[in-house]
Amino acid sequence: MRTRFHQSLDDLKEKLLRMGGLAEQAVDRAIEAYRLRDANLCQQVLEGERAINTMEREIDELALDLLAMQQPMAVDLRFIIAIVKINADLERVGDQAVNVVQRVMELLKLQDGELSVDIPRVGSVASTMVRTALESFIYARADVAEQVLKTDSQLDQLNAEVYHAMLKTMHEIPALTTQALNTLLISRNLERVGDHATNIAEDVIFWVRGADVRHLFGSQAANR
Amino acid sequence: MRTRFHQSLDDLKEKLLRMGGLAEQAVDRAIEAYRLRDANLCQQVLEGERAINTMEREIDELALDLLAMQQPMAVDLRFIIAIVKINADLERVGDQAVNVVQRVMELLKLQDGELSVDIPRVGSVASTMVRTALESFIYARADVAEQVLKTDSQLDQLNAEVYHAMLKTMHEIPALTTQALNTLLISRNLERVGDHATNIAEDVIFWVRGADVRHLFGSQAANR
Repeated sequence: MRTRFHQSLDDLKEKLLRMGGLAEQAVDRAIEAYRLRDANLCQQVLEGERAINTMEREIDELALDLLAMQQPMAVDLRFIIAIVKINADLERVGDQAVNVVQRVMELLKLQDGELSVDIPRVGSVASTMVRTALESFIYARADVAEQVLKTDSQLDQLNAEVYHAMLKTMHEIPALTTQALNTLLISRNLERVGDHATNIAEDVIFWVRGADVRHLFGSQAANR
Repeated sequence: MRTRFHQSLDDLKEKLLRMGGLAEQAVDRAIEAYRLRDANLCQQVLEGERAINTMEREIDELALDLLAMQQPMAVDLRFIIAIVKINADLERVGDQAVNVVQRVMELLKLQDGELSVDIPRVGSVASTMVRTALESFIYARADVAEQVLKTDSQLDQLNAEVYHAMLKTMHEIPALTTQALNTLLISRNLERVGDHATNIAEDVIFWVRGADVRHLFGSQAANR
């Protein structure tokens, strides 16, 4: 029974990592869609949203089944709750990718303007944060999760730079106002991807640190 | 033992409602801060964020304690998981209120421009969605939760109107570009408040519908 429970825990973890893969892929595709001005990639991101939403529900159901299966130890409870929370954030990473491609589709309707901002760089920082947050989860490494928190201020800085550059463009070249606005909003969406990565990292810290503290309690509970 | 468990469930629910009250208050204050151009109210929202974050952790810990306390029935498990998810969304409603007042503080630095948009209306729809979503939770009413989902498209529409009005302002009165941009971003933050209310409503539906389906299973499990 205990073995079957732990097998299911592994399944749950693996499903969450697949979910993470889908979310990351959506962000990377959205950045590529921006870089290449590719309507096809936009479409792929839009179509991928449903799979992400479906997987979110599947993971929640599996987590519930596991909780119902037997009295999990405190350490496993924290793990399952962390997964439920991380799951919700990954789904919203997917939502942000959708928001990005909606903006890219707006940009496709407009004439190409010379906007001197490096959106792929913003996107790459955001996407790396998601990947690192998931790694911190896989290896239960609070120190790696803390790296994500640090990178978030770097991302905020990059986003602030885009904001000011685009505001300047709007003032100086009014004809590019719509392009500049869409670009600014894409940058903000990517910054929010980083916020979700930060939430995930915080949940990993909550889980790992709590698990350390509560491990003893968990064992005691099992002996009651 | 069972009674103590249900007492704790009630405590958890009450704590979540207090959390909801704090998040709602933050949004309402942020809207007032915008309407009255009140730096004091901005400060109150900024200072209130910590209390919301602290309460989020307390609710998570209480949920974990409850899960560890005894083998909850499936129906109770779904309830606790719904609370953990709703809790995370309420914390982010608070974050959006902070984002709004940060924009309001930017507006305070600028000369007042005549911008013909009704931000308090957008805010009022968003705030009502949060309140209604919490009500649907209190009374376990999936039909009330569905109202929230319907209102979300109304909010999206209002936000799109603000977007287009502000874009028009930027093109026609470049001197008001910064004001218009900040106003547009406030509207987007409020629209995201509505997204969180939508997430909460979806969690309520997931819980209520699942509880209906699983109630039997829960009883059977208790009889095993």
